[in-house]
Amino acid sequence: MERPRHQGMAKNTYMRWRLPLVCLLWEVAMIILFGVFVRFGPEADAHWEEKKREMNLTSDIENDFYFRYPSFQDVHVMIFVGFGFLMTFLKRYGFGAVGFNFLLAAFGIQWAILMQGWFHSFKSGKILIGVENLINADFCVGSVCIAFGAILGKTSPIQVLIMTLFQVTLFAVNEYILLNLLHVKDAGGSMTIHTFGAYFGLTVTRILYRPNLEQSKDKQGSVYHSDLFAMIGTLYLWMYWPSFNSAISEHGDAQHRAAINTYCSLAACVLTTVAFSSMLQKKGKLDMVHIQNATLAGGVAVGTSAEMMLTPYGSLIVGFICGIVSTVGYVYLTPFLESRLHIQDTCGIHNLHGMPGLIGGIVGAITAAAATEDVYGKEGFIKAFDFTGPYQRRTASVQGGFQAAGIVVSLLMAFGGGALVG
Amino acid sequence: MERPRHQGMAKNTYMRWRLPLVCLLWEVAMIILFGVFVRFGPEADAHWEEKKREMNLTSDIENDFYFRYPSFQDVHVMIFVGFGFLMTFLKRYGFGAVGFNFLLAAFGIQWAILMQGWFHSFKSGKILIGVENLINADFCVGSVCIAFGAILGKTSPIQVLIMTLFQVTLFAVNEYILLNLLHVKDAGGSMTIHTFGAYFGLTVTRILYRPNLEQSKDKQGSVYHSDLFAMIGTLYLWMYWPSFNSAISEHGDAQHRAAINTYCSLAACVLTTVAFSSMLQKKGKLDMVHIQNATLAGGVAVGTSAEMMLTPYGSLIVGFICGIVSTVGYVYLTPFLESRLHIQDTCGIHNLHGMPGLIGGIVGAITAAAATEDVYGKEGFIKAFDFTGPYQRRTASVQGGFQAAGIVVSLLMAFGGGALVG
Amino acid sequence: MERPRHQGMAKNTYMRWRLPLVCLLWEVAMIILFGVFVRFGPEADAHWEEKKREMNLTSDIENDFYFRYPSFQDVHVMIFVGFGFLMTFLKRYGFGAVGFNFLLAAFGIQWAILMQGWFHSFKSGKILIGVENLINADFCVGSVCIAFGAILGKTSPIQVLIMTLFQVTLFAVNEYILLNLLHVKDAGGSMTIHTFGAYFGLTVTRILYRPNLEQSKDKQGSVYHSDLFAMIGTLYLWMYWPSFNSAISEHGDAQHRAAINTYCSLAACVLTTVAFSSMLQKKGKLDMVHIQNATLAGGVAVGTSAEMMLTPYGSLIVGFICGIVSTVGYVYLTPFLESRLHIQDTCGIHNLHGMPGLIGGIVGAITAAAATEDVYGKEGFIKAFDFTGPYQRRTASVQGGFQAAGIVVSLLMAFGGGALVG
Repeated sequence: MERPRHQGMAKNTYMRWRLPLVCLLWEVAMIILFGVFVRFGPEADAHWEEKKREMNLTSDIENDFYFRYPSFQDVHVMIFVGFGFLMTFLKRYGFGAVGFNFLLAAFGIQWAILMQGWFHSFKSGKILIGVENLINADFCVGSVCIAFGAILGKTSPIQVLIMTLFQVTLFAVNEYILLNLLHVKDAGGSMTIHTFGAYFGLTVTRILYRPNLEQSKDKQGSVYHSDLFAMIGTLYLWMYWPSFNSAISEHGDAQHRAAINTYCSLAACVLTTVAFSSMLQKKGKLDMVHIQNATLAGGVAVGTSAEMMLTPYGSLIVGFICGIVSTVGYVYLTPFLESRLHIQDTCGIHNLHGMPGLIGGIVGAITAAAATEDVYGKEGFIKAFDFTGPYQRRTASVQGGFQAAGIVVSLLMAFGGGALVG
Repeated sequence: MERPRHQGMAKNTYMRWRLPLVCLLWEVAMIILFGVFVRFGPEADAHWEEKKREMNLTSDIENDFYFRYPSFQDVHVMIFVGFGFLMTFLKRYGFGAVGFNFLLAAFGIQWAILMQGWFHSFKSGKILIGVENLINADFCVGSVCIAFGAILGKTSPIQVLIMTLFQVTLFAVNEYILLNLLHVKDAGGSMTIHTFGAYFGLTVTRILYRPNLEQSKDKQGSVYHSDLFAMIGTLYLWMYWPSFNSAISEHGDAQHRAAINTYCSLAACVLTTVAFSSMLQKKGKLDMVHIQNATLAGGVAVGTSAEMMLTPYGSLIVGFICGIVSTVGYVYLTPFLESRLHIQDTCGIHNLHGMPGLIGGIVGAITAAAATEDVYGKEGFIKAFDFTGPYQRRTASVQGGFQAAGIVVSLLMAFGGGALVG
Repeated sequence: MERPRHQGMAKNTYMRWRLPLVCLLWEVAMIILFGVFVRFGPEADAHWEEKKREMNLTSDIENDFYFRYPSFQDVHVMIFVGFGFLMTFLKRYGFGAVGFNFLLAAFGIQWAILMQGWFHSFKSGKILIGVENLINADFCVGSVCIAFGAILGKTSPIQVLIMTLFQVTLFAVNEYILLNLLHVKDAGGSMTIHTFGAYFGLTVTRILYRPNLEQSKDKQGSVYHSDLFAMIGTLYLWMYWPSFNSAISEHGDAQHRAAINTYCSLAACVLTTVAFSSMLQKKGKLDMVHIQNATLAGGVAVGTSAEMMLTPYGSLIVGFICGIVSTVGYVYLTPFLESRLHIQDTCGIHNLHGMPGLIGGIVGAITAAAATEDVYGKEGFIKAFDFTGPYQRRTASVQGGFQAAGIVVSLLMAFGGGALVG
């Protein structure tokens, strides 16, 4: 029952032993580290009945599982089907994109559970995990998938796995600096996921630059069915983005609000993408690549602010702007980056994640700085920004400043880390 | 990184400036109207902590978000992937169908939030939105997607956007008449979504009739991979239809019941579709178009009654009948409509949404008229039909009469509105 | 609007009248049996308001619908899209696989609701159904889809329907013996679904063996786009498997734990599959069939133990082993089965469901036998294994013995039933 194997997946795996060895050794390492460190959190442990009494919960439905599991599954689909199929538009890398994405994500989530666990869920020597850890691991890997979009077709599976190892590590450090040291809000990850992932990937691809790659441009052509497969990726990302931005927000109103803001921003983004795609093309035809990518920029750009009181019309404005910025980026900036700065951005992640991520960070900083007790309510204000304990006295404008600092830190980590890995 | 653009999406967009202008101006109008009118509802607002006390809720899990968000995401997939990919079976409109569907839906949901908001969620000058508004906006746009199925391949993107604007407006008016003035139940929208959408689209396509279109029949051929893509659309509609019919039902038993009834009806529908498709074709072969479409008729036809005590076997009977009606419609009625009445129904929406929608309205009227306190329980009876306030004295048989009136109103609105827009 | 019909779907449906007759008669039988037996369970019945008081529930959110509906929809996608598209990798059976799978599943879920209902939900002459019954019906049909994978391309639709009828019946009997008589835990169905389904299908295909089929091997070739479609099936199965294994676990920690264990096992499985696929192929290329199938073995193999305290590293170990076993099976065992034992396993279900199912049963028996009150907590221990009523005195090691007995019973039922049906 031998079946033909496709080039995209196979062409770079020329070394018979190296890939198996890396996979097996790393997986053994994961098992040992999980064995030493990872245990079930209280809500997934069989002692839950006793904990439930301690936590004063009256019903099983108050288990965090029921608050977050549906969103987790949506995020899971975004990472594996969304990002995977979005990259199938390239004629010759269709299967390779989906397959490599599958491999890097499956490895990445294990390493992410460990790295993020040490920083955020470490209690008396153990990492205690629950559904929120699974979502965060998926988020972390999402950032690697973004960076992978820049180097698609230029690396071997082993190089991709090594990049995953380092990027997940740096992601966790950056996330720790932002969320814990700067006490910044970034539930949908405009800064931690998109800005970091995009500029990390762009730095790596700049360093991997080889001029002769330009000649193989024919491989980058798209074909009819590839475009429909890519559209599956696009639509799943677009539809489930409200789950992405709300998945780890506070229970209740914050999750609800994050979903609504993201829904609005994405809807507006589609219209300006179509408008500018049509306007900037000869004869007013639409470019498939814009429809497949720029329509998603609205989701990226409310990643930080979606759980805040951005309001539905604020979200529409953000989506409106990002559809334009992203489409214009595909038309003018990507060719410029390639010809002048020698940055070959295969999937245009600078337009979809880089710039919208930066915009998202800025919108988040402004929205936070503009927050008032009047708009949020006294309790809501404290809850929204978690102004408790040592942060009890932080004001909205100070928070805005820290949010802005978060953007800078993410950029520096991305450039530094990317240069290191590249 | 120029990539080829496909004909389906591009052929009608010959006017370089008109489409961008319409998209941008309308989106600006949306931003202004959202800015003036749309705010977060109490369950998505940061004041939720205070409201929670007022509403006497003890846990964040009682936020409407957790009752409806999973169903919302399923409905979202139905609108964008389901309806979009169902229309890809046509050889040359594959990408155009998915892309235009994306554009019209993204615009439509914004306008629907406003129109439906003014009628249903308007409080002291503001439209207060929550997850239920998002579902209703998706529903409203679903009705436009249905109508789009009749005119697929005959219109430019601008015409589609204009049709969307008018149809959403009329949908909201019709819905207001049915739900508020007639106090009719229609959670899954057999009348408001399917009957209205289908006959609206058929009226428009009748008016757009151009005889020479018949000659381009080769474009309507399907190809192998198109059929697999269309099957993705079919299956997502089929699988998520229980969520569609239960998404805005009352919390608790009504949502539960609506999902079960829809599941049963759809299962039965598949068997009669296969039976009649095989029976009516030469040599007993199955027609792909029947499998892709008629199998869904069972979901349409329990749209009104699914949340009532239709019972599982009642649902099987409805599904049984609709599989037959819909398949027979594809074989005999569609050619008849085209040759005699000059109605070119590209996707056969009359068979999938028109007739099953009417049947759904009738089944709903009968089920309502047959309701008794014995079957529903005293409290359940009042809750199921919301016989409170001014409707306290309405009886089951009177309700049945109003349900029947709802069918007639929907039909009249569809014919009138379709003629106007066409 | 005649469209071409594809061979895969059509080639076996040569008998014009038989298929329609079987479909119609069976559906009529379903209606009659549902009419006599099936009613809404208390949580889906309009009397719920009264029951809620009886059951001492304070909120509608405690309706089982909200605990299980999101998982149900994920399982639904696995059965219809997952299993359906996984089988599209064959060049000429693409559409047939999806279409037949649709037909058999739609019939099977109705019959499963009845069969499982008589055994598990029968109260005072009626089968009372709720969302859990829908999940169980989907599970039961999943077992048929697995068996269908072995005989794909060798049978007519009618034969498939007849196999479905018998297999569902035997599934329900086997499930009754395991869950009720042996009091075995098997929430994710390693034994009841995978072991039973796989060995049932293998026995049937052994009996259907016709040597000349070997010559038509060219039909089994895969093509580029088929592989991308199959990857849709793979990914949806992979992503939603945590929902599969947790869907019918106890509320609260058990569902939470089952999802985490499955997530971990599947992640590890991807790495060892890639490693061994690369290692065992000439030139280190990856075989698509391994990526599409063996990556899922980790989900199968924690089907019994996922809801137990398997721990995350335990899950990694199980996934690690199963990726290896399954890939090695594809390379060495499938050709051996075909050439020596005359078992033509079209989709390699022995490697994906057979062996991993057996491993899953064994892991479950060991995990149960190793359970202690220390690890589970006093209450948790009783809750996890339902050691109440007549099972109050059962110990962990006795439970382990019964779990092992469950494997043997499933195997015997599969061989016996398969021989009968074949």
